[in-house]
Amino acid sequence: MRIRLLLEYDGTDFCGWQVQARGRTVQGTVEEALRQILGEEVRLHSSGRTDAGVHARGMVAHFDPPRELPLRAWREGLNALLPDDLAVREAAEVAADFHARFSARGKWYRYSLLPSPCRRPLLGRTSWQIRSELDLPAMVTAAADFVGEHDFSAFRAAGCAARTTVRRIDSIDLVREGELLHWDIRGSGFLKNMIRIMLGTLVEIGLGNRPTTDVRELLAGCERSRAGRTAPPQGLCLQEVYY
Amino acid sequence: MRIRLLLEYDGTDFCGWQVQARGRTVQGTVEEALRQILGEEVRLHSSGRTDAGVHARGMVAHFDPPRELPLRAWREGLNALLPDDLAVREAAEVAADFHARFSARGKWYRYSLLPSPCRRPLLGRTSWQIRSELDLPAMVTAAADFVGEHDFSAFRAAGCAARTTVRRIDSIDLVREGELLHWDIRGSGFLKNMIRIMLGTLVEIGLGNRPTTDVRELLAGCERSRAGRTAPPQGLCLQEVYY
Repeated sequence: MRIRLLLEYDGTDFCGWQVQARGRTVQGTVEEALRQILGEEVRLHSSGRTDAGVHARGMVAHFDPPRELPLRAWREGLNALLPDDLAVREAAEVAADFHARFSARGKWYRYSLLPSPCRRPLLGRTSWQIRSELDLPAMVTAAADFVGEHDFSAFRAAGCAARTTVRRIDSIDLVREGELLHWDIRGSGFLKNMIRIMLGTLVEIGLGNRPTTDVRELLAGCERSRAGRTAPPQGLCLQEVYY
Repeated sequence: MRIRLLLEYDGTDFCGWQVQARGRTVQGTVEEALRQILGEEVRLHSSGRTDAGVHARGMVAHFDPPRELPLRAWREGLNALLPDDLAVREAAEVAADFHARFSARGKWYRYSLLPSPCRRPLLGRTSWQIRSELDLPAMVTAAADFVGEHDFSAFRAAGCAARTTVRRIDSIDLVREGELLHWDIRGSGFLKNMIRIMLGTLVEIGLGNRPTTDVRELLAGCERSRAGRTAPPQGLCLQEVYY
């Protein structure tokens, strides 16, 4: 029996998804709740990792419980044990060949910018505040150059261990919601810090510190050192994983 | 010289607006920052109080600094001293006869409902989660009965010290934003817990536990004990004060 979970979390107080020696992680917190229900260790497999401080509305993970329990045990049971900043939105039984990571066909991430001259307590937890005016048409033009299949070597963290660096971006859409500017990015998969470096570069273009043509040249050049800074984690949210 | 501040705060970790013997309050936190800048105590006057856990995007307050400082001292200076969950959005010099409370002509509050069968870490901090389905047309019909001038005795907290209980509601609008249902309530002024009791009553109507005609009868009856429960504070936000 294999169970698929849809998880939502506020990443602020988590040291990311993956279990590590020190620090509170999403994976570790869910595995501990599973251990309390089952009385034994169970390994949770996710569609991928999220960095410390990154949020998720739709992280997908699976596990194989050593014994059968009614489905509601996994949603209501886990939610009764999980802390306020982490919850199971759905639990479903899936085929034995479903794998949260290897069956995934794509992902939708949202990066939210907040143009504001001053700190905003109600919005700052889930966005990157930009104090100066942004040239949005320039950013939209530059963002379009990310769409398609490219070598994203210039847009991955130094510690990225992926074997291949070619990824496909299906779409980048700018969606306004109140004062927030959401950048919705859908693609086949993402390298470590890839979206945060993409956004750091786009914001530098929006501030007029880089030409609009820079994205094309950075993709061709494959040098991380020439791309923009890594945008802060709290603006990023994993919205959905496609299967 | 009189300075008007526009404040935003995440009410989660505040014991409300007003200074009290124990507990962290918004007023106390701003007054302490003013004391650090000025080296002496200054009293801050607000448009009104917010309860513990209630948020504000647009609280207005004023104070009379004992000596002149450039205007940016009040925004940038205060924001450098205030914690992450509280910020000054604007600071402006106003006429000596401006009073944050007595000059106010009306207020806009927003109460946000989240229909969801399970806990939602990214939305739950600023909304009231409703697990069952809501009859929205019934709620909209009932809400319309609040509009106009009424005696709101049935919709105020036991500890409310207001001398008069007649208030005018100018409009109640339902605004959908993603999964959230915002109830935008504009009026001349509000009694203690008034909006939270109004929403508690509307939700009971939406759940089918009260008839749609109840609002009219509760207003006429003036008995707090017959109205609905007090909705939780985290769904409420003071959006704007009108002058």
